[in-house]
Amino acid sequence: MKFRILKKDKESEARIAIIETPRYRATTPVFMPVGTLGTVKTVSPQELKDLGATIILGNTYHLYLRPGTEIIGRLGGLHRFASWNRLILTDSGGFQVHSLSPLRKITEDGVEFRSHLDGSIHFFSPEKVIKIQRILGSDFVMPLDWCVSYPAEPWEVKKGMDLTIRWAERSKKCPLNPHQNLFAIVQGGMVKELRKECALKLIEMDFSGYAIGGLSVGEPKSLMWEMTEFTTPLLPQDRPRYLMGVGKPEDIVFAVMCGVDMFDCVLPTRCARNGLLFTWKGKLRIKNNPYKDQDRPIDEECNCYACRNFSRAYLRHLFINDEILALKLNTIHNLSFYMSLMEKIKREIAKGTFRKWALEFIRTYPELEAL
Amino acid sequence: MKFRILKKDKESEARIAIIETPRYRATTPVFMPVGTLGTVKTVSPQELKDLGATIILGNTYHLYLRPGTEIIGRLGGLHRFASWNRLILTDSGGFQVHSLSPLRKITEDGVEFRSHLDGSIHFFSPEKVIKIQRILGSDFVMPLDWCVSYPAEPWEVKKGMDLTIRWAERSKKCPLNPHQNLFAIVQGGMVKELRKECALKLIEMDFSGYAIGGLSVGEPKSLMWEMTEFTTPLLPQDRPRYLMGVGKPEDIVFAVMCGVDMFDCVLPTRCARNGLLFTWKGKLRIKNNPYKDQDRPIDEECNCYACRNFSRAYLRHLFINDEILALKLNTIHNLSFYMSLMEKIKREIAKGTFRKWALEFIRTYPELEAL
Repeated sequence: MKFRILKKDKESEARIAIIETPRYRATTPVFMPVGTLGTVKTVSPQELKDLGATIILGNTYHLYLRPGTEIIGRLGGLHRFASWNRLILTDSGGFQVHSLSPLRKITEDGVEFRSHLDGSIHFFSPEKVIKIQRILGSDFVMPLDWCVSYPAEPWEVKKGMDLTIRWAERSKKCPLNPHQNLFAIVQGGMVKELRKECALKLIEMDFSGYAIGGLSVGEPKSLMWEMTEFTTPLLPQDRPRYLMGVGKPEDIVFAVMCGVDMFDCVLPTRCARNGLLFTWKGKLRIKNNPYKDQDRPIDEECNCYACRNFSRAYLRHLFINDEILALKLNTIHNLSFYMSLMEKIKREIAKGTFRKWALEFIRTYPELEAL
Repeated sequence: MKFRILKKDKESEARIAIIETPRYRATTPVFMPVGTLGTVKTVSPQELKDLGATIILGNTYHLYLRPGTEIIGRLGGLHRFASWNRLILTDSGGFQVHSLSPLRKITEDGVEFRSHLDGSIHFFSPEKVIKIQRILGSDFVMPLDWCVSYPAEPWEVKKGMDLTIRWAERSKKCPLNPHQNLFAIVQGGMVKELRKECALKLIEMDFSGYAIGGLSVGEPKSLMWEMTEFTTPLLPQDRPRYLMGVGKPEDIVFAVMCGVDMFDCVLPTRCARNGLLFTWKGKLRIKNNPYKDQDRPIDEECNCYACRNFSRAYLRHLFINDEILALKLNTIHNLSFYMSLMEKIKREIAKGTFRKWALEFIRTYPELEAL
């Protein structure tokens, strides 16, 4: 994997870069749609390509449980199984065990957990998680980490961080396929000294990229932003930086200012399925009554399939009648908005006007409601 | 509307024809996917076009209730509302009132019914049903008819038929837009003399096309086939003949032999959503265990998006995990099968080998189960 910075913003930490692998190349800052079970919910691989998606995310925890690593392996790996020939990042499963599994026992060796599906008991060690991802064949691999809740006691945060570092070290020793690239995950909760310690120790081990984990776990937005602003510049300039599970449009714009390159979040796809649509003029709840006879598209500025072909009235009609097409069109639109947002960010960085634009966006966007 | 017969089979009543309207032309025999609420469930207009669909069906009863005729009218008619620029046939609502409405009162004037959604009371007269379809702007318009259940008393069948004829006469007097074409619906239950009487009286009134209604209402398949074989040749050669709500692949092949040109049925789309897939080698229930690691497509002979890109294992994985993409891919596949079936029928008619092929298909297909 090559990571080449094309342009560095002068007024912020933002940069435009290219991640190049034999399979495909992605320009960053990049938003990676979440495809938990080997499918970005409601849309096909062709539709994702048409949207310009270059990297999608798969969840190791979910795929391990369903359909199971072995089946995906037998069918030639996740790319072939899901018919996606661009890039795939798989997470470590750590966060899902943390957030979904009702019972878990953490030891130095790994974590024992119960499936949220059937209560069956499973065990993830750092080695096993790498092995699963080797079989999945993802391009970007995450080591098992330990994420603490918010709020957490300092000793707990420290313990999670130490474990994450030792697990990263063990993960580094595991074999991967030549096309795969191992990232590290910086933990350390909301404690700056721990974030710094974790980052430095992981950097010493030399990973292909660095992720910031353990944010967006319930803390106030200001604290999430503060930790992002503190942690990101500690990470090597010449490696991709990935802020896990973030976020809202304004969070992404802020994090790009801090120097983050990669993002994933269920927000655009999940909101779409709930009928909440993003536009450049704000958010819009498609089921609302005023849309019942509006002949306009969701967003006049949007060029997605939904906006090119359908009125708000039709989309509302589909949505309130539980038509499945509504969920797909909403998803296409929201992903299109996120993709456009990343394009806009890159254009502003290229022009040298990013910081000014970003501050204005951050100030105004969160409150906007589309009419 | 022009209806031109291109080829008449020598060994059966089958024919290849073209229905030409200013908007679009469709080759028959044609299968029309059902788009009850102005959307063929799970697929987009673009996907329908890619599948080769030329005519889709809209349900007058459903669209009248949701989103309401007025809204569709205000948004420029059903074609524009649903972003479908090929042809649309709307049914009369008679069958839906018959099958869905819990309470109904039939008089000479029309039918009073309760909405199956909220119990509200509505009234359909022949004139009102034509007016609704005029506002919807469909290319093929069906007059209000009265369908009887199976089994029914002879007096009941006769009463329904007489009413259908008088309502057709009233419908004929109602204004339509220049691009719209009014069909008539032949009723008469399972009584041949009544079917004949109804057909002859309707033919005298001179409609653009003729539909056979009141079949596939619970009668044995042999009886449905017998009535189709009896009724179809009574209808004018130079007008399209439409067998409403039919059917299974073998029913369609049989009816084409009898001289039917147009078909609609929820079967391919509804079965798709239930995971029952049609292939040339038989039917296949995708959730079944043997498919869990099969690397083959649903049907090797099929060229649809699902078969070109995904294994049975992946489609099973999507389906059993309630992924919405499963419903779309299944629908695309089943519609593709029905479209291929119609292409095959036309090729066999063109070659002059249709009857032989049809009899073999009818004999073998119903029992086939794909492995």
